Amino acid sequence: MSGLETGSIPRGFTACGVKAGIKPSGSLDLALLVSDRPCAAAGVYTTNLVYAAPVAWDRGLTPSTSVLGVVVNAGNANAATGDEGLAHARRTAQAAAKLLGGTSDDWLVASTGVIGQRLPIERLEAGLTDAVPHLTSELSGFDDASRAIMTTDTRPKIVSRRINIADSEIRLLGLAKGAAMIGPKMATMLGFLLTDARVEPEALQSILRGAVERSFNCISVEGHMSTNDTVLLLANGAAGEALCGADLDAFAALVNDACIELARMIPDDGEGATHLITIDVDGCRTFEDARAIARAVADSALVKTAIHGADPNWGRIVSAAGYAGVGYAPPGPALTLNGVELYRDGRPVPFDADAVARSIRERHETSIHLRFRDGSASVRFWTCDLTAEYVRLNADYTT
Amino acid sequence: MSGLETGSIPRGFTACGVKAGIKPSGSLDLALLVSDRPCAAAGVYTTNLVYAAPVAWDRGLTPSTSVLGVVVNAGNANAATGDEGLAHARRTAQAAAKLLGGTSDDWLVASTGVIGQRLPIERLEAGLTDAVPHLTSELSGFDDASRAIMTTDTRPKIVSRRINIADSEIRLLGLAKGAAMIGPKMATMLGFLLTDARVEPEALQSILRGAVERSFNCISVEGHMSTNDTVLLLANGAAGEALCGADLDAFAALVNDACIELARMIPDDGEGATHLITIDVDGCRTFEDARAIARAVADSALVKTAIHGADPNWGRIVSAAGYAGVGYAPPGPALTLNGVELYRDGRPVPFDADAVARSIRERHETSIHLRFRDGSASVRFWTCDLTAEYVRLNADYTT
Repeated sequence: MSGLETGSIPRGFTACGVKAGIKPSGSLDLALLVSDRPCAAAGVYTTNLVYAAPVAWDRGLTPSTSVLGVVVNAGNANAATGDEGLAHARRTAQAAAKLLGGTSDDWLVASTGVIGQRLPIERLEAGLTDAVPHLTSELSGFDDASRAIMTTDTRPKIVSRRINIADSEIRLLGLAKGAAMIGPKMATMLGFLLTDARVEPEALQSILRGAVERSFNCISVEGHMSTNDTVLLLANGAAGEALCGADLDAFAALVNDACIELARMIPDDGEGATHLITIDVDGCRTFEDARAIARAVADSALVKTAIHGADPNWGRIVSAAGYAGVGYAPPGPALTLNGVELYRDGRPVPFDADAVARSIRERHETSIHLRFRDGSASVRFWTCDLTAEYVRLNADYTT
Repeated sequence: MSGLETGSIPRGFTACGVKAGIKPSGSLDLALLVSDRPCAAAGVYTTNLVYAAPVAWDRGLTPSTSVLGVVVNAGNANAATGDEGLAHARRTAQAAAKLLGGTSDDWLVASTGVIGQRLPIERLEAGLTDAVPHLTSELSGFDDASRAIMTTDTRPKIVSRRINIADSEIRLLGLAKGAAMIGPKMATMLGFLLTDARVEPEALQSILRGAVERSFNCISVEGHMSTNDTVLLLANGAAGEALCGADLDAFAALVNDACIELARMIPDDGEGATHLITIDVDGCRTFEDARAIARAVADSALVKTAIHGADPNWGRIVSAAGYAGVGYAPPGPALTLNGVELYRDGRPVPFDADAVARSIRERHETSIHLRFRDGSASVRFWTCDLTAEYVRLNADYTT
């Protein structure tokens, strides 16, 4: 179990995870997240031109004021499946409406797994029927749901937050999955945030978009943008009155914080990874500049393998920053690795290479900090190292 | 030896490769390429904002009408070495001028190897003195030079061309090195082209820039742009009169052809690689669009590992094309892998997955072909697969 308390489940929500026979392994592969009343819903999706059928479906429905829940399957991405894939996304929503109320337009769907294979819609529909009796407001239901959405993840990813706003206790629960094909530009893989706060859908959409920019859009594993990236935020209002002003800001901060905690779990569970790497870039003209530099460093196979080898090879880091497509003032950045300065004013700084190598080897987390002098914008970005195990896992995943 | 004939050496050029003690392995690490008369010289360089001292030196001298040769060392990149690095590049050119004539401005320099370590200039100067008696117009001198510029390359890369233009036989010899940190945007690693054609420096520069666009700028290993990328073309005019008009076009075609042959040798020798992957993209609005799509596919770790695993995982290829930042008309590309169509009109095409897997496994070269319907521009791009051996090689390269 995830270590969350039952009291952390937002009021009015139930969940479950069941085995529908979509994953060849026979593991949990179908999750239901359900509200007992209509939710305001916001969504942020992949910007890949090749996007999955569930992304097309959800994009057409969010922001919304009438969402009753989400059906999620793992083991099949329902991506690059043409018109039949769209029909299957619709049938999934129709089946949920028939079983649980509302119309198909009140149900969002999400899929993750292999691209380009026909979704076994009959199994999914049968699985939905089986799932309904398992819906529970107990933590076990959300825990099962967080496991049912996993593909190559080695562990479920679930977070909770509570805050008192305007005399009400507001609860927020977040679930995510992802371990590879992580290189989002607008969102990443699957993330679901449920809250009993009452927020207007446009405000909810704006809060989610802002939170995603600093969380799911600031991570990568290998930089390959998925066809299925989806982050949804459902707010059912069970906690009380609609939030506005400073209360809305406090709620937005809560969402930001939960998204960041969830997002960093993804590279931390990156396929084959042995290190979580945090890249701080500051002193840039804009947030976009800082993130482009962080992303170039994060996506460099040479940086990732150097960290895997506990090699303080700062030349790879500085040269990656140099090709990010962002202009900067000479002499360029200063670089600190695990708290030790390695490079400044265009020249190496003498340092104890053995000690830095040891600090990389002995710690699970590695910190890279690049400081520019062009402005005051900054970013924190998370990635993982590249290992032979990543290659092994991905050299034979489908056929 | 490289299998080239002695008669393929451009007239007026000599070369050698010696051991100067710069590589810890004690292998050949210093190459001299020398003309017996002044050359027109063109250069194309890395666009990385972090560029090596030799790049700064050569950039200030090309195009030129007075170049006498090039001094190249491997084992040390002389990059991120500050003002001292620039002084060392100058001292290298000064030493060559003292030994072989002209002024320091008549000598180009190039370095490759580890970033951010002080160039052992004393060893390099002593090595130059030792090298001069070894200069020869025999093929053995060029062969030694092609070996002296290697770092993690497993084999030297050398090509030759001969053509009759305007009653003269024109000869062209090309050398290159590179096996990783290959993700050029303007040039790649080190390439040297020597010819006895007589060409004005501005025309030479234009020809080289055009050739690089379709060759060294169309390859990648892991997409990390080097600090030292340099391609030089030296034309000493020993073959006769200055070329112009159709004769110049014929010469440009010769340079294009030699650059493409050299360029594809680099991913073919990519660190740890088992497959050379050729990516053809056509039907795009512009060459830049086609190349951006090819580069996104080439740089995807998921595509590279799929080919390594002989997995016809077309979803990874199509989804990489979808995030290249290039808009295209629905339903997007058709995809052919090793001659078999896998995807068209936004849907998978039924195919014999075992047969395609076998064709990947049994062939050294893999062909990926993406066809769009947006225009008539096309590109051919070369990369290699990603293997556990690449990770092993790069997890402990410097310290």
